Amino acid sequence: MPYTASPLIPSATADHQFSTQNLPYGVFSTSSNPTQRIGVAVGDFVLDLTSCADLLTQSVEGLTAEDVTSSNLNSLMGKESKVWKGLRAQIFSLVTGSAPGLTTSNFVSLTAVTMHMPARIGDYTDFYSSREHATNVGTMFRGIDNALQPNWLHLPVGYHGRASSVFLDGSAVVRPQGQLQKNKEDPKEGSIFGASKLLDFELEMAFFVGGPANPPGTPITMAEAEDRIFGLVVMNDWSSRDVQKWEYVPLGPFCAKNWATSISPWIVSLEALEPYRAATSAREQKDPEPLDYIKDPNYSSYDIALEVTIQGENMSAPETVSKSNFKNLYWNVKQQLVHHSITGCNMSPGDLLGSGTISGTPQDSFGSMLELCWKGTREVKLGESGEVRKFLKDGDTVSMSGVCKKEGVGCVGFGSVTNKIYPAGTKLAASGANGVWKAA
Amino acid sequence: MPYTASPLIPSATADHQFSTQNLPYGVFSTSSNPTQRIGVAVGDFVLDLTSCADLLTQSVEGLTAEDVTSSNLNSLMGKESKVWKGLRAQIFSLVTGSAPGLTTSNFVSLTAVTMHMPARIGDYTDFYSSREHATNVGTMFRGIDNALQPNWLHLPVGYHGRASSVFLDGSAVVRPQGQLQKNKEDPKEGSIFGASKLLDFELEMAFFVGGPANPPGTPITMAEAEDRIFGLVVMNDWSSRDVQKWEYVPLGPFCAKNWATSISPWIVSLEALEPYRAATSAREQKDPEPLDYIKDPNYSSYDIALEVTIQGENMSAPETVSKSNFKNLYWNVKQQLVHHSITGCNMSPGDLLGSGTISGTPQDSFGSMLELCWKGTREVKLGESGEVRKFLKDGDTVSMSGVCKKEGVGCVGFGSVTNKIYPAGTKLAASGANGVWKAA
Ligand SMILES: [Ca+2]
Ligand SMILES: [Ca+2]
Ligand SMILES: [Mg+2]
Ligand SMILES: [Mg+2]
Ligand code: NI
Repeated sequence: MPYTASPLIPSATADHQFSTQNLPYGVFSTSSNPTQRIGVAVGDFVLDLTSCADLLTQSVEGLTAEDVTSSNLNSLMGKESKVWKGLRAQIFSLVTGSAPGLTTSNFVSLTAVTMHMPARIGDYTDFYSSREHATNVGTMFRGIDNALQPNWLHLPVGYHGRASSVFLDGSAVVRPQGQLQKNKEDPKEGSIFGASKLLDFELEMAFFVGGPANPPGTPITMAEAEDRIFGLVVMNDWSSRDVQKWEYVPLGPFCAKNWATSISPWIVSLEALEPYRAATSAREQKDPEPLDYIKDPNYSSYDIALEVTIQGENMSAPETVSKSNFKNLYWNVKQQLVHHSITGCNMSPGDLLGSGTISGTPQDSFGSMLELCWKGTREVKLGESGEVRKFLKDGDTVSMSGVCKKEGVGCVGFGSVTNKIYPAGTKLAASGANGVWKAA
Repeated sequence: MPYTASPLIPSATADHQFSTQNLPYGVFSTSSNPTQRIGVAVGDFVLDLTSCADLLTQSVEGLTAEDVTSSNLNSLMGKESKVWKGLRAQIFSLVTGSAPGLTTSNFVSLTAVTMHMPARIGDYTDFYSSREHATNVGTMFRGIDNALQPNWLHLPVGYHGRASSVFLDGSAVVRPQGQLQKNKEDPKEGSIFGASKLLDFELEMAFFVGGPANPPGTPITMAEAEDRIFGLVVMNDWSSRDVQKWEYVPLGPFCAKNWATSISPWIVSLEALEPYRAATSAREQKDPEPLDYIKDPNYSSYDIALEVTIQGENMSAPETVSKSNFKNLYWNVKQQLVHHSITGCNMSPGDLLGSGTISGTPQDSFGSMLELCWKGTREVKLGESGEVRKFLKDGDTVSMSGVCKKEGVGCVGFGSVTNKIYPAGTKLAASGANGVWKAA
């Protein structure tokens, strides 16, 4: 597909992360209009959907004013996928000039917007679907021969996470306190109280569920799955490894992961990603074959280059610590959704489902400090800054980004999710509403 | 405290579960007025708060019309506890006649109301806080010497649950399908697909979080905990033991528990329960002593008699299978809340925190079929009906109730949570909104 530029927004070139191939949704406000409203990023600008609501609802069947003028995307997400697809098509036509009606007054500069949480998240689930990551963690804790648990190749292992603490790019993140095992070797000696010392990131992506909720008892089938995936973001699943070690048997991670998860602000649709569909790192699922309900006849993922940087307080620039790819997932987004609902679980528009840490095979593609420092046995160099890390320090700023590039196709970028770590006990301003918290 | 009757509602006697000591909140509608609105149960009637909103907001500082006339309790829950306490005091005065203004026209008959979910649940967490239950489960799977994991006596073990599938009393519950371990003894043989055979209930109570949310990074202290607990309900944490067995290592229960959790419709406040405060079954926490942050200087629970009945399709009446008590909790509600937030987790009004299965020491006080049938090794007799069970059958109706009784104090009852199990594959009507689903 040849790239179609935007006469109105010349900055939306084929190599801009917000090319006309992307058209991601977000929720923004400006200082001149503090109303939180829906926008679509195009080049260096944001199309304000409220400003052109009539142009959209008139030509897209099933689309209502509420869907495009609300303060979050839940109403639009709750519509059938043909409505989102119709909306995307109409926005593409308007932005590229094949349909008339837009002027530059419908856009605001990206530099002028404050982003907000794109949706009210009903439930947040996190999976564990990168074989490379699960193998690394399993090898560290159980040895290479038992790295994968017996169930791992049969189903996408996952757990329910905490929705209230999903924050946005730019939010402050406060180091947690909690119970830590007193004697590293012997849990029988009990625990002490303290600030977590083993603070970690997890490089993930996540998707928002869309479409009308399935009633309880009616699973989502593989054939229906794409129509229930509204779009993706980059996600940092902040984790406290020492809290996790002490608490997680037998019911899984709880306080270790209930204090922060952060996401990038722009939601990228599967249609935007379609040209970037690619084989997973596993290429196929044959040994074992998945059970029928979870077998994907179009088994694949997307070629999304992911990168993590860290900038310590005394560093002049961020340094890359990991480069991975969304292809490094054994279980893809459709399989995650189908498995989640196989018991009849009702999936609601606005639910967020995380991929799990995305690690590749080379050491510099590992998606967490736990893996990069191999459980504390090696130091991770932060470029030429002279600084090293095993786990994260107070004042560190962690940034994750994702981008798709291919000759002849418009670039599709996710922006980034960037958060700074504040010391344990830091008070955040109570007014830090809608996902972006700031130190008081 | 001598019992104060209600001149307006003579049925609210001291031994009625909705005595004037109780005054539980719920959300109801009637066929003549389908608007979902907040009510308070008093004897055989429901006080319609919308009908007397002025009488309430005029005399309670900080209480707004929205708090009492909304379609759910989230707005009221989000107020400071002094507002809920003021509202309770004013309702007590009005109902018992010490303050004027109410007439019988402000009430509707309990027999005329349809109940709805009392709140939009932001996040649902389930604990594992009954020592008797954890000991039973641990003994079954690891032997009596290792029954409790090393962390269990140091912290309230818990996990994040699925909020979208918290349903109300009366909702249909559909047997889940999923992955089951092929060979019971050897997980390496993989899994098969099928309907869950080991369907279970879990007898629990749960509380709704109240009060303005703490900002991320600021834990709730023990001194603040009671002001963040809006009230309690009885809860059935439906579980699929065979799905759980195969999936739960290493991240805990996921699909085994994501398909249904059901709660009773009336929320009972801690003030209503105060006369029923009682020592826990453990009486004290000395070995080990809890860490300071989680030590409760007023360590106690509440004397709430709990009962579970089962009625099979061919039975003429429900038969009791378990009688337990809310005292059978090692970690109390305050400790659960404080621990949940110790990492800085922001707790929102409307969050639901479950106790975990509440088992006592005698066999007939066990809170799940897993324990009652001791992992399938004994049959549970359903009274004199001639029927026996190990796990639950299609068509079984499971009912749980809770009640507090004490000489000279008004009775405080929770009503019940009663749900019937439908066969795997049963379609539910898509219109079954707000927590009560019916077969299509
Ligand atoms: Ca994760
Ligand atoms: Ca439970
Ligand atoms: Mg997280
Ligand atoms: Mg449940
Ligand atoms: Ni949740």
